[in-house]
Amino acid sequence: MNIFTRGETQIFTQPVLKINLNNLIDNYKTLCEIIAPATPSAVVKDDAYGLGAREVARALYEHADCRNFWVAHALEGARIAEVVPEANIYVLQGIGTDSRDLFEEYELIPVIASPEMLAFWKKNPIEGIEPVIQVETGLNRLGFRAAELKKLGKADLKIFGTVLSHLACADEKDHFMNAHQLANFEEIRAKYFPDLPATLSASDGAFLGADFCCDMVRLGAAMYGINTAPYRLNQMKNVITVEAPVLQIADLPKGEFVGYSATYRAAQNRKIAIVSIGYGDGIPRALSNIGKVFFKKKNKVFEARIVGRVSMDNVICDVTDVPELHVGDFGTLIFDEYTLDDIARDAGTISYEIVSRLGKNTRFVRKYDLK
Amino acid sequence: MNIFTRGETQIFTQPVLKINLNNLIDNYKTLCEIIAPATPSAVVKDDAYGLGAREVARALYEHADCRNFWVAHALEGARIAEVVPEANIYVLQGIGTDSRDLFEEYELIPVIASPEMLAFWKKNPIEGIEPVIQVETGLNRLGFRAAELKKLGKADLKIFGTVLSHLACADEKDHFMNAHQLANFEEIRAKYFPDLPATLSASDGAFLGADFCCDMVRLGAAMYGINTAPYRLNQMKNVITVEAPVLQIADLPKGEFVGYSATYRAAQNRKIAIVSIGYGDGIPRALSNIGKVFFKKKNKVFEARIVGRVSMDNVICDVTDVPELHVGDFGTLIFDEYTLDDIARDAGTISYEIVSRLGKNTRFVRKYDLK
Repeated sequence: MNIFTRGETQIFTQPVLKINLNNLIDNYKTLCEIIAPATPSAVVKDDAYGLGAREVARALYEHADCRNFWVAHALEGARIAEVVPEANIYVLQGIGTDSRDLFEEYELIPVIASPEMLAFWKKNPIEGIEPVIQVETGLNRLGFRAAELKKLGKADLKIFGTVLSHLACADEKDHFMNAHQLANFEEIRAKYFPDLPATLSASDGAFLGADFCCDMVRLGAAMYGINTAPYRLNQMKNVITVEAPVLQIADLPKGEFVGYSATYRAAQNRKIAIVSIGYGDGIPRALSNIGKVFFKKKNKVFEARIVGRVSMDNVICDVTDVPELHVGDFGTLIFDEYTLDDIARDAGTISYEIVSRLGKNTRFVRKYDLK
Repeated sequence: MNIFTRGETQIFTQPVLKINLNNLIDNYKTLCEIIAPATPSAVVKDDAYGLGAREVARALYEHADCRNFWVAHALEGARIAEVVPEANIYVLQGIGTDSRDLFEEYELIPVIASPEMLAFWKKNPIEGIEPVIQVETGLNRLGFRAAELKKLGKADLKIFGTVLSHLACADEKDHFMNAHQLANFEEIRAKYFPDLPATLSASDGAFLGADFCCDMVRLGAAMYGINTAPYRLNQMKNVITVEAPVLQIADLPKGEFVGYSATYRAAQNRKIAIVSIGYGDGIPRALSNIGKVFFKKKNKVFEARIVGRVSMDNVICDVTDVPELHVGDFGTLIFDEYTLDDIARDAGTISYEIVSRLGKNTRFVRKYDLK
């Protein structure tokens, strides 16, 4: 974006977060085909991984007929209930003293993962709601263990409407844990819940075949564009773009240092740009001296390496080789050719953490694209 | 917190963020003494490093007579303007096409850092506002460079009400950059702005002595409890506490794995707790297999190591040696004895990034303490 009005430089200071809901809907529909005939459902916990749970849930509800949503906390369910009136909203962290009222008010469905939580439910049931039971099959996170399942009475087993487990290593197709967890899940289902619909897989499990898809798949990360099956090329479309304005362009003389703790020293004369985005906006500080800012010029994309530490409000990048760059131009930090997966790799983490963190910042100009 | 009511287990699901504004005010007052006779000012950019700019600014305004505040973006200034009616609000990222209206409406004071932004200001000035000029002294981030200062006319120099620069290495007392930047700043002041009040230091510079304090110090990180002078013991009080409820306690048999990608394997039989907080709440995933959750039991603090990957909504920790632990108890992730500085060290980053990220999450039960 090169912005001149009658020769006058325009100055911008705010970063921009663009969320392409059309691509998100396309990803959801692609995933629906992959998992068919299993029922699709959408994971919009953590504010839809930071992208705005209300906007995402409404788009999926209205444009893709999604009728099943998963959140982590009851308050997240309450936030989307209004925009998905006829849908089931499942709450993964379950129900407790601090959230029961919300379950009742918004007709949320708890996932019950422990004998203690089941005892709480039995003392505080909500009429018309059939909870999900989570069973542990190898992740060793939430879920009834084998010994706990054994202690459930027949009346207890009848409380539930769905049985759920969660895979640990589904992003690695041939990992031994996948077959191990599937076998455990099938054994538990046969023994305790032969008549209940079952859900085992999230986005990553969707690519492991029909056995793993069971009756319902919980589609999350892949819908947001993340490659959850990194052993194959990503079939998903990119959903987010992050841009930030150039506040200043300056010469960096040979021998000078850049940024906090002087972690970059210019070996030759360089040119730098100060770009108005930082870790306060969710760009990880781990990208110091590693990350990239891209500039589109002359129908080409130029890559400018971040130099020095990422600071709270700014990154500094080496634009020596970027032609015709001006104050007021925008650099791009995430886009179709340098996606969440790419920035996460450079930052030494996973895409999920990047997007979850980015989207919550309120300094962005936030733009949703939905046709 | 051990919660039983007539023998019934209470279940909690939401993490809790406590912000001690009393300690924050005490820190501010301690810093005021250290920098006296320089004028104190408070940095509340990035939503007061995530802790709530309105709450923090109001507390400092009402209980510590703070009359000068710094934000990064105009919209951050607009958010606090109402609660600090008689204060100066300075905007570090400056003024642009996307923010000028806010400057006018809320009487914000821009920091102008480039000839381009100065040109913008001269075409779009706001009556009654004297901008700050930022000059570059060695950080190589925002600020007028020497060659740019030379080109300013006398009328240009008279536009400004304050001159500002920023230190790169002030957290290292004897770093050569400190003296280098101070000398540069003094030279620029003498040559171009002999009559203007000056501000060079943030919290870290506050500990470098009167020369570095100039007329005003911008107090940020230290006020929030961070040790910005790590070569000496922290004089600041801890401001934040993070707690999260135990959702489940389970045996982890020898040889089993924990969490995504099975990165932890039990060498012996262990006991684990699943705690309802994760990177979706701002606990860095870099704490996988490294971080700690603390439990207060029998008047002692027990340390439980995080095992396996931190996931979006949960961490799992080894509670084999924690006595009398029950579902519904709360674990502590940040407190007076394991502060922002400690968790940042374990996560391989700086305290600023931790707090900036934590405070923005909306799944916390948020509690402000202010007497």
